[in-house]
Amino acid sequence: MLERIRIVLIGTSHPGNIGGVARAMHNMGLADLALVAPRCEVVTADCVSRASGADALVHSARRTDSLDDAVSDCTLVVGASARSRTLPWPMVTPRALGERLPRELADPESRVALVFGREDSGLSNDELHRCHAHVHIPTNPDFCSLNLAAAVQVLAYECRLAWLATQEATDSSVYHQKAHSDDLAPATHNEIEGYFVHLERVLTRIGFHDPAVPRQLMARLRRFTLRARPERLELNILRGILTATERQATANDQHVPSKATRLPDETH
Amino acid sequence: MLERIRIVLIGTSHPGNIGGVARAMHNMGLADLALVAPRCEVVTADCVSRASGADALVHSARRTDSLDDAVSDCTLVVGASARSRTLPWPMVTPRALGERLPRELADPESRVALVFGREDSGLSNDELHRCHAHVHIPTNPDFCSLNLAAAVQVLAYECRLAWLATQEATDSSVYHQKAHSDDLAPATHNEIEGYFVHLERVLTRIGFHDPAVPRQLMARLRRFTLRARPERLELNILRGILTATERQATANDQHVPSKATRLPDETH
Repeated sequence: MLERIRIVLIGTSHPGNIGGVARAMHNMGLADLALVAPRCEVVTADCVSRASGADALVHSARRTDSLDDAVSDCTLVVGASARSRTLPWPMVTPRALGERLPRELADPESRVALVFGREDSGLSNDELHRCHAHVHIPTNPDFCSLNLAAAVQVLAYECRLAWLATQEATDSSVYHQKAHSDDLAPATHNEIEGYFVHLERVLTRIGFHDPAVPRQLMARLRRFTLRARPERLELNILRGILTATERQATANDQHVPSKATRLPDETH
Repeated sequence: MLERIRIVLIGTSHPGNIGGVARAMHNMGLADLALVAPRCEVVTADCVSRASGADALVHSARRTDSLDDAVSDCTLVVGASARSRTLPWPMVTPRALGERLPRELADPESRVALVFGREDSGLSNDELHRCHAHVHIPTNPDFCSLNLAAAVQVLAYECRLAWLATQEATDSSVYHQKAHSDDLAPATHNEIEGYFVHLERVLTRIGFHDPAVPRQLMARLRRFTLRARPERLELNILRGILTATERQATANDQHVPSKATRLPDETH
């Protein structure tokens, strides 16, 4: 699906932006780049540097003089537009566009073009009117001009998410998650309850908890622990800490029983 | 909501990227930028040029030497990570993160930090272990290294969409959640890190942990604790337990230093 999505740049004036677009595309798994009447030398040091390893997309980009030539085989053409125009056009959000792509590209012959205008002035009305729909990336109204590569990044990201969603929906094996190793397996109810018994005993032992005046201490510790959904290994660590604490208390008892470790009948 | 989302850049080495990040943030309505130990002069011609009018964010950015200082008041810290690590951490997609933000930021005191690492090496394990969760932007497995500004662009875009969704959904008071009481408020990064320092000290003291042979003990305890998103009151309870444990160890030391509590130089 992704190989049939074309990014079309019209009248770009900064080679660095073309490199940045190539990188954003390649990162998201897009490969089809078209350059319409660029207003700069394309393959410069700045372009290659910003492409950061994705400059093959720039070298293989189709070059045309007109938008029509760049999108002639496309079945859906969507223009990126920052402004609302005098003549309202069908508008989609980037997300809605992404969600529409699998359907649009269901036929293996179909092709989608996403068209981006000049850094300074965007797409002309004539170009916008050649599009089936316009896509507007939501921006801060006080600062709405996105960098060209950033705009491509956002739409390419939505394309990738839409494609990933189709992969998950079709490839049933995605749901067969690899079995957990024993350590990573979530602890069972029994194991967790065993931990709580141990925890309460140790907290009582070190004088932090009085079962006769429980307040909500154990309830709070339960809620905290259960919220984290402990794995078996984690529970073993927690029990190890309790055992080490208990050892301290025992060693201590043998020498000078503290107030905290006295039995209730000794305190009266 | 957007004003309480902080973008944190660690060890950035290209001023142009900082400018690009500022532009991406301002485009999406974010304004809080923190620079941790940048490895370059920050405000250069390249930075200002790439910021394209958003350089005020760079001038007003907070500058710190450590991640801890940059996120000390944050209630949710999410690190951008390209790699799956040896010790898996809770992972969210950018979309799931966005959807979670309105809830995370319902309390006017809460703050979210999105943390981005170095251009060449990302975030260190230590930095990743200071995060509640990691966010991974889905990429082409053959070309997965996003430009820093592009990565910020994608997450900032998700932040904006999440914010827009709350704007649309409301006007009704549904989203005006009652502020948490202080006890139920999520603990800040500072409070949680203070707990980890205390925890490591006590575990060492009782002979359960040897900082010289750390294995992954503290990392595992961090992951477990951060996953539960401790509330302030819960953290106070956990610290109370540590203090009670410490008291046992101290009383014990005064009578019969156990092998476990001997200093290393005493054992030889």
